[in-house]
Amino acid sequence: METNKPLKVTLLGCGVVGSQVARGLLTETAHLSARVGAPVELTAIVVRDPAEITDPLIPKSILTADAEGAVKNADVVIELFGGLEPARSLILLALANGASVVTANKALLAAHGPELYAAAEQAGVDLLYEASVGGAIPIVRPIRQSLAGDHVNRILGIVNGTTNFVLDRMATDGSAFDEAVAVAQERGFAEADPTADVEGHDAAAKAAILASMAFHTRVGLKDVATEGIRNITADDVAWAKQTGQVIKLLAIAERTPLGISVRVHPALIPDDHPLAAVRGAFNAVFVEAQLAGPLMFYGQGAGGVATSSAVLGDFVSVARHRVLGGRALGESAYASLPVLQPDAAITRFQVRLVVDDQPGVLSQVAGVLAAHHISIEKVNQTPITDADGRGPSDSGRPSLRSDNGAATLVFTTHAASEKAFAQVRAELEASPHVLEIVSVLRVESGTNG
Amino acid sequence: METNKPLKVTLLGCGVVGSQVARGLLTETAHLSARVGAPVELTAIVVRDPAEITDPLIPKSILTADAEGAVKNADVVIELFGGLEPARSLILLALANGASVVTANKALLAAHGPELYAAAEQAGVDLLYEASVGGAIPIVRPIRQSLAGDHVNRILGIVNGTTNFVLDRMATDGSAFDEAVAVAQERGFAEADPTADVEGHDAAAKAAILASMAFHTRVGLKDVATEGIRNITADDVAWAKQTGQVIKLLAIAERTPLGISVRVHPALIPDDHPLAAVRGAFNAVFVEAQLAGPLMFYGQGAGGVATSSAVLGDFVSVARHRVLGGRALGESAYASLPVLQPDAAITRFQVRLVVDDQPGVLSQVAGVLAAHHISIEKVNQTPITDADGRGPSDSGRPSLRSDNGAATLVFTTHAASEKAFAQVRAELEASPHVLEIVSVLRVESGTNG
Repeated sequence: METNKPLKVTLLGCGVVGSQVARGLLTETAHLSARVGAPVELTAIVVRDPAEITDPLIPKSILTADAEGAVKNADVVIELFGGLEPARSLILLALANGASVVTANKALLAAHGPELYAAAEQAGVDLLYEASVGGAIPIVRPIRQSLAGDHVNRILGIVNGTTNFVLDRMATDGSAFDEAVAVAQERGFAEADPTADVEGHDAAAKAAILASMAFHTRVGLKDVATEGIRNITADDVAWAKQTGQVIKLLAIAERTPLGISVRVHPALIPDDHPLAAVRGAFNAVFVEAQLAGPLMFYGQGAGGVATSSAVLGDFVSVARHRVLGGRALGESAYASLPVLQPDAAITRFQVRLVVDDQPGVLSQVAGVLAAHHISIEKVNQTPITDADGRGPSDSGRPSLRSDNGAATLVFTTHAASEKAFAQVRAELEASPHVLEIVSVLRVESGTNG
Repeated sequence: METNKPLKVTLLGCGVVGSQVARGLLTETAHLSARVGAPVELTAIVVRDPAEITDPLIPKSILTADAEGAVKNADVVIELFGGLEPARSLILLALANGASVVTANKALLAAHGPELYAAAEQAGVDLLYEASVGGAIPIVRPIRQSLAGDHVNRILGIVNGTTNFVLDRMATDGSAFDEAVAVAQERGFAEADPTADVEGHDAAAKAAILASMAFHTRVGLKDVATEGIRNITADDVAWAKQTGQVIKLLAIAERTPLGISVRVHPALIPDDHPLAAVRGAFNAVFVEAQLAGPLMFYGQGAGGVATSSAVLGDFVSVARHRVLGGRALGESAYASLPVLQPDAAITRFQVRLVVDDQPGVLSQVAGVLAAHHISIEKVNQTPITDADGRGPSDSGRPSLRSDNGAATLVFTTHAASEKAFAQVRAELEASPHVLEIVSVLRVESGTNG
């Protein structure tokens, strides 16, 4: 084991994604080294003009314009230049020198994938490219590995965030196409020249990569029939909505009796299809496999920070493979964080009570929570109506009206420990003003970002 | 390269999943051998009583009750017995003999995972377990590998199909808990004794596995605070719906400042959360990572056929690793299927026309389609009203009423080739009765299974 020999990493590019990958390599060195099994060292970042990089986290000493020198000195090369050249030549140089390569370059893979895969094989090193499709979403590894014993029949992918944002905006507020593009530009979801996204070229490169993997067949950009969303009108979107449909720009790769069909075009899908719920600039890839049936992979398809997750995941894979071969990490695989006792778990609680409808009851209930330092996020009290002797929210239960009248009291707490809440619950059960604890449910909102 | 030496596989168990894995190994031998890089041979299926297996696809000659003998003779052992013993002892025996192991055994991993991982490491062989969580959904590999360079902050999983079916049924038709369980049993989504599912024990084992992977920490079943769905009432479900929420049984694993919190309990989530749209017996795992942000993995969490996809995917991984080490498959990686020309692509078309509102026009349009052998799935003709000079479906466009009156005609075709449809379109454009082709959109429904 060469676990003490540092692994030298060269990064090609320091743009939207590259700068985040650099930050990851520089600030998460201990974490990454533990995952890899050897010290990780970012030794060079190749940029056209080192003077232009002003991020204080990035040491000037590792910036260079000498791409060939930096590539020849690396164990792992991470290519984030984008475009065909010099990316292609530098990756071939890296592979020929025995370095492992990670790339996010969809255009290059769609144009020259087979040449690069063959060069990696020839050199006996890894070439991984999870970030080339779907940004942060793990989709390359699941298709190449998890589904390797299955047959993919069809892929429908929302793989371009700009166009999904535009179409979603048109569906949500009835914007015209140009208006929606302008909003996307304002919010940073579309470039000043949105052609590559809007015309479907970006999605077409990703469709070629997805089809190549899914069907173990060489599919290039020229094989992809491509139509963008420029002709979609507000009327088309409104009409789709009226008829229970949604318009999405789909990258489609499917197995037909005559061969593989690969295309990108706007399409109507039913509004209860899992892809219909993919909003804003999010991406999702829907896969139909013979054994697995329908699968969907959802997440952020672009953005420097999100995409750096996929690049760093590939980096750990190729680096670990270099360091350990097929061997396991062993005890160092464990971070061994402490595990909380069940009653220390923190969550939010939503409680429905039937209480006496008289002055001071709310104050008393709130006081019980305050005494245990649990704060209330929202509260709603509704008198139980005379009409049926029960409130709207406890239908199906017998009346619990007291002589003074009763009310339904619903409150949701901010985060509290199970232990503190158990005490609150016991005190509420003992309170003469609480006629019934109708339900206690935990609330998990799962922030969307 | 030992690519000509057959790889001997022993399968432990031939139940719901095992019988499908056996079928895959026996009927997809050529496909699997191409993926693995060597001939694959299912040499033994271990069952208690070989006479009980009557599937005509399974040769009697490979059925045996001699588990130890079959394990000692294998290169790869696939363990689908379930439960703790004899599964644990047989996996340890396989690893000690240098065989690679694939298992779907969540209970065993939650109870004895660290012992088994250490044994695999000691023996220098692989132990994979994608099918232990989320059935067909690739979730183990994405968390262990794709997110290895990121930090998982939180996992919210719907990892038990039975309870999701029951809660979804209660939300959809207002069923009481017992009624919904009875329907789940009728449809094969719940066992005669549904305790392990309903009480959350199945989900708790999966929560322990997810937490162990996500946080690189040993988490066992005893660390998981578990509460099932038995106390959820129709009233709770109705109340959640009224307030824009959904109740789901969640497996939760999260990083907190004090340590890892792992629990299973019913929880309210907002009805616009991606997990809220997971219906019926489907599963989904929502992951929040520091860099990647929110991710979701969706699919079938149970069922023999679906789960066999994950088992066979793991099989290909461990088998390929044995055969090729870290080397690539090379040219044999390619199935090299034919790729269709763009105009040969097959899809459905939805067409909106403004036509003369007079007898014979529909027949003429239908005739154009029939002449090109394209059949119509559905059609709708609406007169354009006098009130505003335009129909309800082409708002925003100028009136196109002819002197005879005009109508909007919308039809959706069955599957047709782009080439055939292009001819139809040209003929419709030339027709004197077609005043405008308002829109042509392709329709992709993506069967849900």
